Amino acid sequence: MSNDNFIFGIRAVIEAIEAGKEIEKILIQRGIAGELFNQLRKALKGTEIPYQIVPPEKIKRLTSKNHQGVIAFVSELTYFRAEDLLPRLFEEGKMPLLLVLDRVTDVRNFGAIARTAECAGVDFIIIPSRGSAQINADAIKTSAGALHRIPVCRENNLKDTITYLKEYGLQVIACHEKTDKLIYDGDYKVPAAIVMGSEENGISAEYQKLCDYAVKIPMPGKTASLNVSVATGIVLFEVIRQRSA
Amino acid sequence: MSNDNFIFGIRAVIEAIEAGKEIEKILIQRGIAGELFNQLRKALKGTEIPYQIVPPEKIKRLTSKNHQGVIAFVSELTYFRAEDLLPRLFEEGKMPLLLVLDRVTDVRNFGAIARTAECAGVDFIIIPSRGSAQINADAIKTSAGALHRIPVCRENNLKDTITYLKEYGLQVIACHEKTDKLIYDGDYKVPAAIVMGSEENGISAEYQKLCDYAVKIPMPGKTASLNVSVATGIVLFEVIRQRSA
Repeated sequence: MSNDNFIFGIRAVIEAIEAGKEIEKILIQRGIAGELFNQLRKALKGTEIPYQIVPPEKIKRLTSKNHQGVIAFVSELTYFRAEDLLPRLFEEGKMPLLLVLDRVTDVRNFGAIARTAECAGVDFIIIPSRGSAQINADAIKTSAGALHRIPVCRENNLKDTITYLKEYGLQVIACHEKTDKLIYDGDYKVPAAIVMGSEENGISAEYQKLCDYAVKIPMPGKTASLNVSVATGIVLFEVIRQRSA
Repeated sequence: MSNDNFIFGIRAVIEAIEAGKEIEKILIQRGIAGELFNQLRKALKGTEIPYQIVPPEKIKRLTSKNHQGVIAFVSELTYFRAEDLLPRLFEEGKMPLLLVLDRVTDVRNFGAIARTAECAGVDFIIIPSRGSAQINADAIKTSAGALHRIPVCRENNLKDTITYLKEYGLQVIACHEKTDKLIYDGDYKVPAAIVMGSEENGISAEYQKLCDYAVKIPMPGKTASLNVSVATGIVLFEVIRQRSA
């Protein structure tokens, strides 16, 4: 069974997974078990699809139909994998500029960042499968449609992805406040990936360690925190400045 | 009579004006006349307070009390005048950086811009009395409180204000798309005012003509329009880059 934005019922969800449908997230009711559920677990294995165990009320609020405790949100976008897109950029002779977003959970911030990234000519955005904003109609609207024009890669393990980018020769540069190096002192005339964190959590320590170095936006004012979409714009257009100089 | 955000009744509004209360905007019901109303007109003369003639329903929706066709929105902020603040900056030996916003009507965009401007150390923001976003609780919230830390000047005639800034020795620089000069090629190591327009209307032609020159943000991507708060951040932090170099 399906609705505009979600599919419900265990078998329907299994079929969607096996058909390779883009699934944003699956909600599984706490305590669900049985043969059919085991089939679902099997179908999920090896995919990048995030799932969440939730109390029955959460699913009840979404549909009163026969959901069997499982609901899958269908994605409005087709997701990509970094390892499929990155080699192509090099083949095309491009100097890659990627944007990695660590747990930006606010849908509108995510949309605004996508808009800015697309304007700046970012080749693609990388997000983790878990803990990212749901890319729904609201995100696409806030992006002014940019989410239809810039590829988004969803990766199960951002640590592996960052390592992959580095092995591929990219400079992976974290943007946060806990450094002395200003964004203007970074060197972006090389293949580069900029890592931004959420306003609440910043960039996870384990990713920070993996990055080649970190840069910060100077804060001459008293309010020491920019909105993450504004901060992303400031860093990306410093990259553009250096590359166009 | 007063409510949280507005004052109603002609005499109450006159008293508020005469007491020098900060009034955001006055709504006057179409067709109102009489001696008391003439007193209100007299009180308004020479002030910067914007008013708007509206159909009776608009006021009815706001209060069912005895409003006599007049409602005044009380400001959450104290407004300043550019001619009071600018000389002080020079006296303090500062290199002024001002931000002029031409008809940014979206409350959240305005709040987001104020946050960014305060982070960048902008000395004050100038807005026109008419056609600006109402600086309400929502704007202050979006600004992350920055609107309590950065002065906002409300000016009746932006043309006069821009002329005043130029006479005072500031470079007045418009940021819009209809120019070949990139933001990176502007010279901001001088006292400067950056002029931004709204996403819908840009900067009025008459103000554009008054500006010393214009700069644009390059757009390597396909989406040719940035959110105005992101665009403001990009320009302001290019100023910071040049000034800190």
